[in-house]
Amino acid sequence: MSDLSPVPASAVVRVDLPQQPYSIAIAAGLLDRLSVQFQDVGLTGKQVLLVSNPVVFKHYGDRAIAALEAANCKVTTAILPAGERYKTLRSVSKLYDVALKARLERSAVFLALGGGVIGDMTGFAAATWLRGVRVVQVPTSLLAMVDAAIGGKTGVNHPRGKNLIGAFHQPSAVAIDPDVLRTLPAREWRAGMAEVIKYGIIWDRELFERLEAAERLDRLRDVDADLLHHILTHSCRAKAEVVAKDEREGGLRAILNYGHTIGHAVESLTGYRSVNHGEAVAIGMVAAGRLAVKLELWNAEDCDRQTRSIEKAGLPTHIPLALDPDEILAALQADKKVKAGKVRFILPQHIGAVTIADSVPRDRLREVILGAMGNG
Amino acid sequence: MSDLSPVPASAVVRVDLPQQPYSIAIAAGLLDRLSVQFQDVGLTGKQVLLVSNPVVFKHYGDRAIAALEAANCKVTTAILPAGERYKTLRSVSKLYDVALKARLERSAVFLALGGGVIGDMTGFAAATWLRGVRVVQVPTSLLAMVDAAIGGKTGVNHPRGKNLIGAFHQPSAVAIDPDVLRTLPAREWRAGMAEVIKYGIIWDRELFERLEAAERLDRLRDVDADLLHHILTHSCRAKAEVVAKDEREGGLRAILNYGHTIGHAVESLTGYRSVNHGEAVAIGMVAAGRLAVKLELWNAEDCDRQTRSIEKAGLPTHIPLALDPDEILAALQADKKVKAGKVRFILPQHIGAVTIADSVPRDRLREVILGAMGNG
Ligand SMILES: NC(=O)c1ccc[n+]([C@@H]2O[C@H](COP(=O)([O-])OP(=O)(O)OC[C@H]3O[C@@H](n4cnc5c(N)ncnc54)[C@H](O)[C@@H]3O)[C@@H](O)[C@H]2O)c1
Ligand SMILES: NC(=O)c1ccc[n+]([C@@H]2O[C@H](COP(=O)([O-])OP(=O)(O)OC[C@H]3O[C@@H](n4cnc5c(N)ncnc54)[C@H](O)[C@@H]3O)[C@@H](O)[C@H]2O)c1
Ligand SMILES: [Zn+2]
Ligand SMILES: [Zn+2]
Repeated sequence: MSDLSPVPASAVVRVDLPQQPYSIAIAAGLLDRLSVQFQDVGLTGKQVLLVSNPVVFKHYGDRAIAALEAANCKVTTAILPAGERYKTLRSVSKLYDVALKARLERSAVFLALGGGVIGDMTGFAAATWLRGVRVVQVPTSLLAMVDAAIGGKTGVNHPRGKNLIGAFHQPSAVAIDPDVLRTLPAREWRAGMAEVIKYGIIWDRELFERLEAAERLDRLRDVDADLLHHILTHSCRAKAEVVAKDEREGGLRAILNYGHTIGHAVESLTGYRSVNHGEAVAIGMVAAGRLAVKLELWNAEDCDRQTRSIEKAGLPTHIPLALDPDEILAALQADKKVKAGKVRFILPQHIGAVTIADSVPRDRLREVILGAMGNG
Repeated sequence: MSDLSPVPASAVVRVDLPQQPYSIAIAAGLLDRLSVQFQDVGLTGKQVLLVSNPVVFKHYGDRAIAALEAANCKVTTAILPAGERYKTLRSVSKLYDVALKARLERSAVFLALGGGVIGDMTGFAAATWLRGVRVVQVPTSLLAMVDAAIGGKTGVNHPRGKNLIGAFHQPSAVAIDPDVLRTLPAREWRAGMAEVIKYGIIWDRELFERLEAAERLDRLRDVDADLLHHILTHSCRAKAEVVAKDEREGGLRAILNYGHTIGHAVESLTGYRSVNHGEAVAIGMVAAGRLAVKLELWNAEDCDRQTRSIEKAGLPTHIPLALDPDEILAALQADKKVKAGKVRFILPQHIGAVTIADSVPRDRLREVILGAMGNG
């Protein structure tokens, strides 16, 4: 990171939910100061189930445990295998087993130390253990920091569909330590950038223009501390604002699915392996942008600006040629966001503003998907 | 049933929850008129996942489906094996599979046609499918009518503990047709009577006295239609009032666990087989009553009245001799209602009023358990 800002910036983003408001703290070194946050939300001295995966735990497990013990918490650890394909009911079942063995009571706290996979499963286990215990999110991937850790969506995949099983369960606190991103694989950094660019397009023109102005976005070490801080705070704020206005995805929250409709189809058809979530979203945004242009909702120039930013972040812009366009169309019909058989799309109108299109003509959709097939 | 009341009585009990109030309709023949209720709550024309078990479905499945089709619903059926030992994540998983295959959308409704086992699993599946779809409860056992179907607790058992996995998810409507009780096995009728007697002790002295005045309580055919109607409406009202005052079991709702602390231990140690839920609760109420007398909270005479009513309902009053008292004590420590290692008991003070004792002395508890061992 740059040495332009010797004092690390810190910020608190509030998620203003009527029932359970909570704070997202963003500060370098926060991992070692979790006890402060635990004190703030009245969690000192609790039983804690720390959930992580082997990679993240190896890097940060000891520090997290030390910080929790400094808050007088009794820590039990559960390590789940890494990867989207382990985001299953079976993995959550293992958390129940550990929770039972450790005799975790209603006052216990589950803590997710990891990316979105760990965050979603930990949140779901917390939502359903003893019909609900508290959860604290300590996201370690960029994607989890700006997206998965915020907003209370939790869950697992069904063998035949992503995130079909889950619950809404808001965290009691979210702690973001940007320093942990240093060990994040470059590809995962880029995947998170897809969601960041998404916030620029759907909500925050200023954020988008900061991204446009940057020399490079494809690797952390070329992003200075100021820009990183801007990225994290503005992305979290965007998500927090949308969620606060629509906790249960009745309306506005749907805009967060920009790029996700085709994205999910691509992810699922590639077996959650060759294309990761962020990459799929990048592909989906490019396709949705072109659909918007085709439907005369958006101008071609802004659509190109989006594509260039996505490319600058080192993200793919085409649907892998190995996929069958008709299978993608079929998968879109099976998507859980389908309303009465019609595919719903979030489409840009300006940079910073999108609209919801409820019944996109199937042939236009097909054209865009055919046009999106390619390499890279 | 008696022919004293040729016009079947009907009643509506309101569950006054601030977020999602709903109604419990109680009327003979209601099963065939589900479409009316579906219309009332705006569910006509929805996709419906009807969940039942083979026994109940054989008796009532066709009629329920006909009624739902009269409401223009598209019905998919899922039949799960009968019995508490199938109240598992695996069974719920099967519901997810059916839901996926039938492409159930967010607007779909899950409908539980069965006892508490079906009700709890259907409710949990509804709470977690696509992060929450609506559920309608059509309870067919006495226990489910007066207890399980009301109040939004849903869930499944962990192999090593009852109801450890679950969620709060209120139904959109509850439909009780007393006529279906005619096919309920006598032992299940008696099990439900345990919860009815519980409401008399914890909340409704009038209900208790009506039960006391009855000639017999141990089989449906000796209970006249008036008394049955009184039992159902007053029990539902008791539960509804308690739940409305405390949706998430923060305080008052704990009184519904009267008899359940020792009851759960007995159920779990007998492997959920030889003793059913209601029988375990009956045993637990007798033990809790004696504990209350020992602690000088309750008078011995009222405690005996409770015991006599339980006996009149043909329910057991002793802990099976096959169980080890020390294992029961150990199981109580593992109960999820344990707070900081202390066993919490609900204890009667009068007929119609209980109190919460937070730290019952272990030796008193042991005495009562030893004294409760016996046959029948
Ligand atoms: N709940 C929500 O609202 C929401 C929103 C968006 C995405 N998601 C979910 O999040 C998941 C994707 O999250 P993700 O991209 O974080 O994936 P992930 O959790 O699999 O993490 C990506 C990879 O990075 C590694 N990693 C994470 N942090 C690291 C660090 N600091 N150092 C080294 N390695 C690190 C992980 O071990 C993993 O291999 C998907 O399952 C998606 O459905 C949920
Ligand atoms: N959610 C709650 O608040 C709550 C409250 C109390 C109990 N429960 C749960 O409810 C379950 C017990 O419920 P239950 O006693 O209804 O058990 P159950 O669902 O197993 O039903 C008992 C038996 O009666 C049969 N049956 C039900 N209705 C019938 C009918 N009309 N005709 C013929 N046979 C019929 C069933 O097939 C079953 O064999 C337990 O799992 C318990 O944990 C939940
Ligand atoms: Zn996403
Ligand atoms: Zn009960």
